[in-house]
Amino acid sequence: MPDRNRRITLAARPEGPPRATDFELVEAPVPRPGPGQLLSRTIYLSLDPYMRGRMNQSVGYAPTVDIGGVMVGGTVARVVESNLGGYQAGDFILCSNGWQDYGLSDGTGVRKLDPAAAPISTAVGVLGMPGHTAYVGLLDIGQPQPGETVVVSAASGAVGAVVGQIARIKGCRVVGVAGAREKCDYVTRELGFDACVSRFDEAFPDALRAACPDGIDVYFENAGGAVFEAVLPLLNTHARIPICGRIANYNQTEPPPGPNLVPRVMGLTLVRRLTFRGFIIFDHMDREPDFLRDVGAWIRSGELVYKEDVVDGLEQAVPAFQGLLQGKNFGKLLVRVSDDPTR
Amino acid sequence: MPDRNRRITLAARPEGPPRATDFELVEAPVPRPGPGQLLSRTIYLSLDPYMRGRMNQSVGYAPTVDIGGVMVGGTVARVVESNLGGYQAGDFILCSNGWQDYGLSDGTGVRKLDPAAAPISTAVGVLGMPGHTAYVGLLDIGQPQPGETVVVSAASGAVGAVVGQIARIKGCRVVGVAGAREKCDYVTRELGFDACVSRFDEAFPDALRAACPDGIDVYFENAGGAVFEAVLPLLNTHARIPICGRIANYNQTEPPPGPNLVPRVMGLTLVRRLTFRGFIIFDHMDREPDFLRDVGAWIRSGELVYKEDVVDGLEQAVPAFQGLLQGKNFGKLLVRVSDDPTR
Repeated sequence: MPDRNRRITLAARPEGPPRATDFELVEAPVPRPGPGQLLSRTIYLSLDPYMRGRMNQSVGYAPTVDIGGVMVGGTVARVVESNLGGYQAGDFILCSNGWQDYGLSDGTGVRKLDPAAAPISTAVGVLGMPGHTAYVGLLDIGQPQPGETVVVSAASGAVGAVVGQIARIKGCRVVGVAGAREKCDYVTRELGFDACVSRFDEAFPDALRAACPDGIDVYFENAGGAVFEAVLPLLNTHARIPICGRIANYNQTEPPPGPNLVPRVMGLTLVRRLTFRGFIIFDHMDREPDFLRDVGAWIRSGELVYKEDVVDGLEQAVPAFQGLLQGKNFGKLLVRVSDDPTR
Repeated sequence: MPDRNRRITLAARPEGPPRATDFELVEAPVPRPGPGQLLSRTIYLSLDPYMRGRMNQSVGYAPTVDIGGVMVGGTVARVVESNLGGYQAGDFILCSNGWQDYGLSDGTGVRKLDPAAAPISTAVGVLGMPGHTAYVGLLDIGQPQPGETVVVSAASGAVGAVVGQIARIKGCRVVGVAGAREKCDYVTRELGFDACVSRFDEAFPDALRAACPDGIDVYFENAGGAVFEAVLPLLNTHARIPICGRIANYNQTEPPPGPNLVPRVMGLTLVRRLTFRGFIIFDHMDREPDFLRDVGAWIRSGELVYKEDVVDGLEQAVPAFQGLLQGKNFGKLLVRVSDDPTR
């Protein structure tokens, strides 16, 4: 066991896309757990788009990271030393160490993982926050009915892939929007979506329209920007739009140029009786048991599959995160910070 | 009984605010009711903002008025001649004669009115579609809780006045937005709102903020434009925004200049978990009995009051409607097309 704890901290608040110099890799002694605490070593660090918001000064739905503070993030880790009842050295846990080798915890938000039940990496992916987000956003907010058309942006991503597969299982026509051609192929061939349209296509709005001959009943919004604008005219009466993320807008430093389309969006909201609803998963923790039961069963039956994009080494977290915001990952993005002894 | 039926038809589709030349007053013979029909004479014609949308070519939630067609509208009328079971000459009815002296009906959407129960004019106002819209939009979509802050735009209007009074009855802090000072005074003194802010004030956004020290939990959207933009930053986490109308935008021929605020609105929708939901009353007719029971009781008990702005003569419908779109009316706008024998 190394005696140093590498940590990636926030060096400066980014303007626009985060630069390498907005982060700093620092070393500190490995901390010792106090009474009621446990020390764990990070195995997998989850990288997710929401982290971009935590780098800003502006107040969102969660505290921002302080300058000099360790970047936050969900992690799969192994207990090194425990002064906390119920945990002992060697246990695999879901915790929030953030972007560092080691972390302390008093047990808040920690869950023990059974490597025999599912690969431990899934606890921050398909069986973790991204999967839970997909489940609640689609089923509780989108309320898809059999035969309806569901469109999912960022369709090959950690959330989108689960949204679309659940919609397929529920009997919907499912249309994905993704970037690279290989992602679109994956979405239709491996995930079983009915169609997938590339947002890189010059004729993207027309292609989306062609893929949705009966309009759109549920649009699961992960994208923002041009995808949102292409979806808008296709929305059916009484369509539901769960707002999960707006990755196209996260790096924006100021509003895009006009015209101002708010009146158009709100006018359509009125005449088509649309429902736009933003949500974050922390408001819906009561649904976690249902989510784990249903998605766990679909994974075991092979009805729902998942893909992980694993990069090796904490020092790769920064470029991997920069790529995530540009859609360069292919599947749920994870940093393997230390060896996974279960694989 | 005159032998001519005066009708106001759509002469041209307006670009921007409707001009007098977009309408035409024509005369036709008074029609005779066929089998299963009744003929009625219009007493009150209701003028409502939604009518502006019916003048456009673009497809909204209801058929547009054809060029040369009679302008549509809800009316209170008296049966002249009936070949329809259940109705006889002299009955007062709620019907949809539109902007004309006489109309035929097969009974669809017709309701008989009891002048002893309530003034017949209320059937197109506080006890009609505007009141029903207020009731459903506030209670079913806004879901206000006691102690929450409800903001209502167009607060002295046919819908807004009912929204705010129901919110007050439900134990909310109620803040109105209106135009002229006398309307604001009416809203606080007569309707019992906690505060009312004039959108004509130079410091309107600041005044609204000061009137909402605990933020806004429900914004009943009737206005659009600058009122919407002032409300946006004040919305609390989990706020609900029923979209009932967007009168500031109805006469727009193209989107306003930038910046494009859609990303800002959707970003706020996400981080504050807002719900924007457009609705029209025709989707909620199942709630009419509840509405009539509750609002009827509140009127009888004096808890809920209403104000009518009555102009005399069908020929006044055009300038009155033009004024409505500019907020010149004060209370529910009605055209008295013929004498009301119950007053």
